[in-house]
Amino acid sequence: MEIKIMKNILDRNQNMADEIRDILTGKNVIMVNIISSPGAGKTTLLERTCERLVNKYRLGVIEGDVTTDRDAQRLKKYNIPIVVINTEGGCHLDSHSISKVLHLFDLENLDMLFVENVGNLICPTQFDLGETFKLAVVSTTEGDDKPAKYPMLFREARAVLLNKTDLLPYTNFNIENFRSDLNILNATIPLFEVSCTRGDGLEVWFRWISEQIRNN
Amino acid sequence: MEIKIMKNILDRNQNMADEIRDILTGKNVIMVNIISSPGAGKTTLLERTCERLVNKYRLGVIEGDVTTDRDAQRLKKYNIPIVVINTEGGCHLDSHSISKVLHLFDLENLDMLFVENVGNLICPTQFDLGETFKLAVVSTTEGDDKPAKYPMLFREARAVLLNKTDLLPYTNFNIENFRSDLNILNATIPLFEVSCTRGDGLEVWFRWISEQIRNN
Repeated sequence: MEIKIMKNILDRNQNMADEIRDILTGKNVIMVNIISSPGAGKTTLLERTCERLVNKYRLGVIEGDVTTDRDAQRLKKYNIPIVVINTEGGCHLDSHSISKVLHLFDLENLDMLFVENVGNLICPTQFDLGETFKLAVVSTTEGDDKPAKYPMLFREARAVLLNKTDLLPYTNFNIENFRSDLNILNATIPLFEVSCTRGDGLEVWFRWISEQIRNN
Repeated sequence: MEIKIMKNILDRNQNMADEIRDILTGKNVIMVNIISSPGAGKTTLLERTCERLVNKYRLGVIEGDVTTDRDAQRLKKYNIPIVVINTEGGCHLDSHSISKVLHLFDLENLDMLFVENVGNLICPTQFDLGETFKLAVVSTTEGDDKPAKYPMLFREARAVLLNKTDLLPYTNFNIENFRSDLNILNATIPLFEVSCTRGDGLEVWFRWISEQIRNN
């Protein structure tokens, strides 16, 4: 019975996600569903990305959080449309929560809508939000075994961003192990090795994300 | 309807958790449900703790993982009973999965059973496993805002272990903010500030966990 119910929930989520995807495609808006563990650096990545691209492209953000609007507060300075969804204990965003806030954005005047999902490497991967693609963010301090231990996200994402490379010298993170585990799951996925706090490697990321917008 | 089903699932989980708690109390075994984000250092904490206490107390481990037995492999060297539960994509352990493996332990000859839950700060907090208490593990590299953003665990846990203090000089983690947010949620909770890789602060932790066994 539980399995049937879960299937119903996922089916209904999928239907709404498909509707959202149709709307966004019609308006030529790319939606990026950013998924990571708590504290991997999603918000700092958005800060750096807005800082660099806000004058070139029309950006918007949906901030998913269990509680508080702390992440949204950090992005206010870029003067872009931001909507917070508090899940009140819920472990992921779903397409219904996205659908409820989508009308708050002027989609005619938007190139890219970032969705910062709830900090969780597992549940968000099961719920399609109608995104154009998923972006996996993982940090060196979490250990090199994350793709092997949480494979779902790394199989599905269009790109992986490995953050906190500035801390590599102080950890036992083995980057060859990380790359080889990732390669087994998803051999062609682009991997960006960056430090969002120090800026290392971000130029390649900015180029890639800009290309996604230009090729849309 | 979904809410009713969720209530049924949680009710059935609670009934089984109560049974497990009765069994463990009868056998004088303490069960510690360890909860953290992926990569916060639960397994390294268990390595250090087994290393130190394995000759004084009779320890056992249940390893909860989405997939792989990598964490269990790391603990094999301590020659203690270890059982792996792979959730196959599931985001938390529940009391039914614990109940299915509990008979694999010789409870008459066990002082403490550690349960390393799936790496997830949210879902595992909702499922009582029949544990004696929850232990929250969080690392400095995740940022000082974790108690504020994921309050459920920090309200319920009997103790908090802040790991990776060796990386404090390289992060913008503000320990006063962390302590004060934690204090709002749970004013009397013991906080252990440690580096499991370097050993800093672990003596206080070993003393506390030993006391839990001796006072049982």
